[in-house]
Amino acid sequence: MSRYPVSRIVRDLPVSVPFVGPEALSRQRGRSFKARLGANESIFGPSPRAVAVMRDAADEAWMYADPENFELETAIAAFHGVGAENVVVGEGIDGLLGLTVKIAVEPGQAVVTSDGAYPTFNFHVDAHGGRLVKVPFRDDREDLGALLDRAKSVRAAVLYVSNPNNPMGSWWHRDEIARLIAGLPGNLLLILDEAYSDTAPADAILPIDVSNPQVLRFRTFSKAYGLAGARVGYAVGDAALVQMFEKVRNHYGMGRTGQLGALAALADQEYLRTAVAQINRARERIAAIARDNGLMPLPSATNFVAIDCGCARLALGKQSATQSDGAIAKAILDGVLARDVFIRKPGVAPLDRCIRVSCGPDADLDLFAGALRGALDDLRSS
Amino acid sequence: MSRYPVSRIVRDLPVSVPFVGPEALSRQRGRSFKARLGANESIFGPSPRAVAVMRDAADEAWMYADPENFELETAIAAFHGVGAENVVVGEGIDGLLGLTVKIAVEPGQAVVTSDGAYPTFNFHVDAHGGRLVKVPFRDDREDLGALLDRAKSVRAAVLYVSNPNNPMGSWWHRDEIARLIAGLPGNLLLILDEAYSDTAPADAILPIDVSNPQVLRFRTFSKAYGLAGARVGYAVGDAALVQMFEKVRNHYGMGRTGQLGALAALADQEYLRTAVAQINRARERIAAIARDNGLMPLPSATNFVAIDCGCARLALGKQSATQSDGAIAKAILDGVLARDVFIRKPGVAPLDRCIRVSCGPDADLDLFAGALRGALDDLRSS
Repeated sequence: MSRYPVSRIVRDLPVSVPFVGPEALSRQRGRSFKARLGANESIFGPSPRAVAVMRDAADEAWMYADPENFELETAIAAFHGVGAENVVVGEGIDGLLGLTVKIAVEPGQAVVTSDGAYPTFNFHVDAHGGRLVKVPFRDDREDLGALLDRAKSVRAAVLYVSNPNNPMGSWWHRDEIARLIAGLPGNLLLILDEAYSDTAPADAILPIDVSNPQVLRFRTFSKAYGLAGARVGYAVGDAALVQMFEKVRNHYGMGRTGQLGALAALADQEYLRTAVAQINRARERIAAIARDNGLMPLPSATNFVAIDCGCARLALGKQSATQSDGAIAKAILDGVLARDVFIRKPGVAPLDRCIRVSCGPDADLDLFAGALRGALDDLRSS
Repeated sequence: MSRYPVSRIVRDLPVSVPFVGPEALSRQRGRSFKARLGANESIFGPSPRAVAVMRDAADEAWMYADPENFELETAIAAFHGVGAENVVVGEGIDGLLGLTVKIAVEPGQAVVTSDGAYPTFNFHVDAHGGRLVKVPFRDDREDLGALLDRAKSVRAAVLYVSNPNNPMGSWWHRDEIARLIAGLPGNLLLILDEAYSDTAPADAILPIDVSNPQVLRFRTFSKAYGLAGARVGYAVGDAALVQMFEKVRNHYGMGRTGQLGALAALADQEYLRTAVAQINRARERIAAIARDNGLMPLPSATNFVAIDCGCARLALGKQSATQSDGAIAKAILDGVLARDVFIRKPGVAPLDRCIRVSCGPDADLDLFAGALRGALDDLRSS
């Protein structure tokens, strides 16, 4: 039979899905979720001003968005005190990560990340034929020293670091990030994924410095800004590097609604502060729920909390004596999902001893509290 | 100075922009346009039901869209009488073209298209390191026989054909497309870009046949459906080929508003028929305006009309005697733009003897008529 050609890199790739969405889980279960606390969205929503702008934008859906993202990039640049030539907007950080790999990595070249860090980054490296080199987390944080050492020893093209970190919620003081940057060898690009910067302590985040061409900072409107469905992320860095994106990006990839919504959301910093305060309260509430159930919440600088389920072993008694921490956490996850509350968990040991719960309003966290209690009760009595 | 790495392909690429948007032109001119007739958008807009759904979706912007596009792909599949496994949705046809090149083309391999056909396809081929081989148009149509011969002789991985064609508005009877498909050699993928299928004569479009793994059909909600700003396109074809997109696409690339808007637009075929009737009327009106001004409209199966300006030479008198047809068309284009009506023109000879005007309501076409008359008057008196 006559066939079509498939490039070597794509042919050899497995079909993999970075994150199965709650909609797909609902379809598998044949039942929808009552609370959606697994995708680190902001259930508190975006600024009402952004919502109003996006409503009105529906009437203009016949028009392509400005392919230069001019107004949005100009506003972002002003917000960070850099030039518009230092900013590139894209279809979420995800889309920009794919383009960055395409720009900086030759097929076969090494790319260093943490084992258990953002799977979508790994997905893009694989899709481009890069060679992933993974460094274990250390004490639930990305191990900056080991990452840098490994990047040097394998002569990596790109080093991926997230601060704060997903899936653990951990973070580094900005002085540690500064030390990492000071130690970068030549010809290495640092991807600093700061999707959760808006919910982090102020001293975790370095001021943006576009004079260092080796550091590209990634931000998003999907987390604290509450616009995950609008798909707007951006990268900030050296103008010549940012210019490279023009060679490879989908110039007409941005939706008009998202462009306008992000612009309005950025302008409403007062609302962002309110949302971050709500996220902070929800973090404390999730931590309290975990402790009430004999589990250990990890400190978080993000809009979610990782909950260590390893300590559930004692509470659960003999049934769990032979199970790994990961298996116990998986059993708890399944029990919570079965009660129609969508949460997720890390997949790589030792992070996989945790479940991960996104911040949300009290009504949603009440549902989580009930589901968690029920899941643990089931495990005790099984 | 320490530098970042840049892949060879990207380093050697020029910075190029497939299409400068009307917003960028407005910024250059320091003045906005009164009519927007250059981007082949549908000024008649989308179905009111789609607008209503997108308005409501603003409240849910905090949620990621379903990364599997399940409901939309299922609806598209039902519409075409194929399986959901034969459909992949993406950020416009543009985004899907980039992914198709990534899937099918090794860097250095030949890709055949028509000289003057869709520049964004060429952009993606360049960005992937493919080798573009261009075949001239013949009588203002893509030269199917010559394209096939060239694809065979250079052992191309991919052949790009659009039917109907942008920028000329021309089309082939479906029997000619069937003949092309029957002649495809092994290991060649045909990209059949049917962005304008909804405005084409019925006998221009072959029924979709997913049993042929060498043909991938591309459709969009950006044209007759009136949802350019929502960024929703799709490809239909062999299930195994469609599955390849899962390996390389940005799984969370689709906006929630666009997903829902496209679903509602697809369900409202009655509105689509109304919009197509409006587009047909506007095509006739544009043709009449061209003839009234001594210019020659080309037949069109799309939502725009290419107007041959070569025949303006006689009318314009001695000033134009030494100018090329392309230069005359450019002078007319500039005159229309200067009167605040946004239109475009093809860039490659001999297509460049035309200006290209998108369909729109009478008020917009009145503005175009006035601007064209003024532009021609200026040229006569210059």
